[in-house]
Amino acid sequence: MEKSLILAWILVLSTAMALAPCRGYYSDAEPYVPAPKKVTHLHFFLHDTMSGKNPTAVVVARPNMTTAPNKSFGTVAAIDDLITVGPNVTSKVIGNAQGLWVMTDRDVFGLTVYIDFGFTEGEFNGSSISIFSRNPIAETERELAVVGGRGKFRMAQGFA
Amino acid sequence: MEKSLILAWILVLSTAMALAPCRGYYSDAEPYVPAPKKVTHLHFFLHDTMSGKNPTAVVVARPNMTTAPNKSFGTVAAIDDLITVGPNVTSKVIGNAQGLWVMTDRDVFGLTVYIDFGFTEGEFNGSSISIFSRNPIAETERELAVVGGRGKFRMAQGFA
Amino acid sequence: MEKSLILAWILVLSTAMALAPCRGYYSDAEPYVPAPKKVTHLHFFLHDTMSGKNPTAVVVARPNMTTAPNKSFGTVAAIDDLITVGPNVTSKVIGNAQGLWVMTDRDVFGLTVYIDFGFTEGEFNGSSISIFSRNPIAETERELAVVGGRGKFRMAQGFA
Repeated sequence: MEKSLILAWILVLSTAMALAPCRGYYSDAEPYVPAPKKVTHLHFFLHDTMSGKNPTAVVVARPNMTTAPNKSFGTVAAIDDLITVGPNVTSKVIGNAQGLWVMTDRDVFGLTVYIDFGFTEGEFNGSSISIFSRNPIAETERELAVVGGRGKFRMAQGFA
Repeated sequence: MEKSLILAWILVLSTAMALAPCRGYYSDAEPYVPAPKKVTHLHFFLHDTMSGKNPTAVVVARPNMTTAPNKSFGTVAAIDDLITVGPNVTSKVIGNAQGLWVMTDRDVFGLTVYIDFGFTEGEFNGSSISIFSRNPIAETERELAVVGGRGKFRMAQGFA
Repeated sequence: MEKSLILAWILVLSTAMALAPCRGYYSDAEPYVPAPKKVTHLHFFLHDTMSGKNPTAVVVARPNMTTAPNKSFGTVAAIDDLITVGPNVTSKVIGNAQGLWVMTDRDVFGLTVYIDFGFTEGEFNGSSISIFSRNPIAETERELAVVGGRGKFRMAQGFA
């Protein structure tokens, strides 16, 4: 039986509306006038599956031993998780989340994530968002740092 | 006996003063007007301990072999280091630094770090800063790239 | 014989022209006025060598086993690649790219990269750029997310 960690994500992003050098005005001597920005809200679900026939997250490294209270401290996993529109894994797939997560809390269950969220459907097809942040998964209200993006999320900043 | 690498950090951060969609003005059709920013200076010490009874940094991966002059090239460690107000590890703890560092220089002792600096005390309790940067630790004056943050450091940019 | 993956990179960066607190105007009470920005175009070549006497990329971790169609899924490598002005590895070296890449696609050959591009020559000597992004290397036109930088690329945003 598959056990899947399903996470609901709400992203608020502030992105440059267009490629800066095309929209802004610049030269070697003069200051650059930034392009206008826009704010985008996204809502989706992530399925992180470590067991079953087709795990989407696999452990790639861990310490030889640990003295930390959290025995999983230092575990590193590579992921290629499904992103869906609804909470059920059978709902429409709109992308995938690729990258690493690391168990980085010596005491409790807590992660630092380095994940690129890529979209394969609709308006954001071919675009992706880079999230690098601790993820205190014991807390119900979490915030993660968005640090960049590709395509329509180029130069994105925001939080998840 | 514990051997600890103590690093003094000065952070200069430029952050949005408030959640952009609340402060800025936006719609689907009109450009977003950014919220004002503010600059924050932080000063703290990081304790990276690889030995002793309670190491805060553990090696999780390394190459099977290396031909590089730096025999540690490719070593990956997961960390959960203490952040203190003073240089002594017994001084007040104000947070922790979680993430990975990797020995990424074939020739000399040099790291690339992927660390989330989280604060647990005072004004910045619950906030954190994401740093992703090479860290040329042979140089005394170093600069690291801040790429994002959470809480009061939401959408942070800056350097450390 | 060495086999090297040579990648041409064009970077478009938008950076603060100077250290914000020196150029901008700020106080505890008043909003920060951002420094002007400028746009920089860079063009260079990256040499990622996994074989031969002096590999610049070494595998540091992989899963014990994988059921993914892409048998390399989860492979993690640490790199210290050469950056040159021309496509030939014997052309002038202007820097190095240090960090990690991870095979993060279960189905096809695809990477997520966490790389700091550091320059050692010319105008950008001592500066570096942090790239954290998926890298769909099966596509000829790729875009990667720039998330920050050091030195002259301090607070950089852009794409590669």
